[in-house]
Amino acid sequence: MRLFTSRRSESLASLGETKLIRAIRGWLGAANPAAPRGIGDDCAVLEGHRGKQLVTVDPVVFGRHFDETMSAADVGAKLLKRNLSDIAAMGGRPTAAVVALATDSGLKIEWLAAFYRGLSRAALQYGVSIVGGDVTGAPAGTFVAALTLLGVSSGSRVLTRTGARIGDRIYVTGALGGSLLGGHLHFEPRLKEGAWLAKRAEVRSMMDVSDGLAKDLHSLTPAGARADLHTDRIPVSKEALQSARKSGRSPIAHALCDGEDYELVFSLRASADFEKFERAWRKTFRTPLTCVGVFTKQSAAVLPGHVNLNDFRGYEHLL
Amino acid sequence: MRLFTSRRSESLASLGETKLIRAIRGWLGAANPAAPRGIGDDCAVLEGHRGKQLVTVDPVVFGRHFDETMSAADVGAKLLKRNLSDIAAMGGRPTAAVVALATDSGLKIEWLAAFYRGLSRAALQYGVSIVGGDVTGAPAGTFVAALTLLGVSSGSRVLTRTGARIGDRIYVTGALGGSLLGGHLHFEPRLKEGAWLAKRAEVRSMMDVSDGLAKDLHSLTPAGARADLHTDRIPVSKEALQSARKSGRSPIAHALCDGEDYELVFSLRASADFEKFERAWRKTFRTPLTCVGVFTKQSAAVLPGHVNLNDFRGYEHLL
Repeated sequence: MRLFTSRRSESLASLGETKLIRAIRGWLGAANPAAPRGIGDDCAVLEGHRGKQLVTVDPVVFGRHFDETMSAADVGAKLLKRNLSDIAAMGGRPTAAVVALATDSGLKIEWLAAFYRGLSRAALQYGVSIVGGDVTGAPAGTFVAALTLLGVSSGSRVLTRTGARIGDRIYVTGALGGSLLGGHLHFEPRLKEGAWLAKRAEVRSMMDVSDGLAKDLHSLTPAGARADLHTDRIPVSKEALQSARKSGRSPIAHALCDGEDYELVFSLRASADFEKFERAWRKTFRTPLTCVGVFTKQSAAVLPGHVNLNDFRGYEHLL
Repeated sequence: MRLFTSRRSESLASLGETKLIRAIRGWLGAANPAAPRGIGDDCAVLEGHRGKQLVTVDPVVFGRHFDETMSAADVGAKLLKRNLSDIAAMGGRPTAAVVALATDSGLKIEWLAAFYRGLSRAALQYGVSIVGGDVTGAPAGTFVAALTLLGVSSGSRVLTRTGARIGDRIYVTGALGGSLLGGHLHFEPRLKEGAWLAKRAEVRSMMDVSDGLAKDLHSLTPAGARADLHTDRIPVSKEALQSARKSGRSPIAHALCDGEDYELVFSLRASADFEKFERAWRKTFRTPLTCVGVFTKQSAAVLPGHVNLNDFRGYEHLL
């Protein structure tokens, strides 16, 4: 559906602020509690929580994160899910969100209704309340929606990106490389998996794969180390194989570089009982789990069957 | 200063994401704690709090909330202060904020540096940590910065917009009508006053004046009531008098309708000891406090010297 219209009667310009906010509350429905717990006061008022609090913010921008080939409902759901993936990456549980919208007033009311309904459906599915927001005008052709998501630790521990040591194994959930063929919209934030991993003492650090493993893994790599990946074990998705047939690039290049996988990558202590850990995972989840490599000393020789992540740009051309 | 430049070397386009985030951390300085308490992980991790939690979001948009005549530092400070005013309106204490930026990549690095330095200075002044954010590209000429501010109740009570009853007095802090002559940038969020008022049992409801008292007061008005204002007692600012000389409108029209005053308006129980309450205020604050009117039954006759707020549009022409 087209986002913008020159027919005033079909656009936000015909509503005015009060009517628009009332409409948004209607579209959000049960995902928006009554004020002051939801939209309608100067702030939303939430119950306190003694554990750790989490906060993250990510937007969707027209022309950058989505275009007119995608359904407005999928875009609304994606806005929440990409933030949910950040909460999952710390092992947290999401609680509440606010949405700041800046848009060309020629935005179609029908498009925005579908966007908020998609957002609402995802919010109800994942137990998130949409408690506030703001709508403001922006230049022609602009649609920006920034969602700030709050969460809490699901247990006593929050997992961060730091903590991996040389010798630790590198694990990835799910399969990589599906984003170009729709995975960037139709993914499942790994909330349950993240919460489970945060409770396992042998897991030392974690993040989500949003920019591609090849880029993101640097953030998990301890000082003086590098990540060596076992090339045969990268969980390449079926979609990455399809993308490769179209692009002429290798499937592994798609799996490591395309980004927007929203899978989890984490480090496991070298001294851990890997088999026991993997058995426990398989008893709990159907989500695939793969050991893709290891953090080694920067000076060490590359293991047989492995590739140094730092060489990946060159590596891509070799395949 | 101009926001955008066609010289690539002076614009964000020359930096790339990693360098830009590093630069932002530098500009924020002490206002940004080390990760995971600040920028650098998938979420920011904050300490929990057992009291009520507050959350609000407001943006600044180029061409709407500011233009090139205003200093970037003032715009950055305003982004925080307009959100602080929402926390003040509930009687809360601000804690942490995240900032989502969507901008034309032709934005001048120099402008953005001044913006973040102004934001940082205000954050340090009001005890707020800037703990996270996001930067993304947007169409030509677009600059949107949305700040989500978290806070906590400063005492046992959070003041909301509901609770006023017929007969309650209406009070306003400070003076109204200065926004057009710079008040919309150079205001002081009424955090101390708001926290003090939330601790006084005789105060029943409160909000901040952001769209002008004539519009905002409707949100405080109980069902079946209307707000009658004592026209001689509206605290009209000196700037509203100046604006009136330029515009040909009345000073009271500027005071009631211009918006962006960021003062507090609240209701005081009819049975309260007003003199004692006002004495206690004056002992604590230099900020002016004015009783501007009363909530009366919709059917009641208008008191001498008062005007029915609902008639204000007509009233403006009478002066």
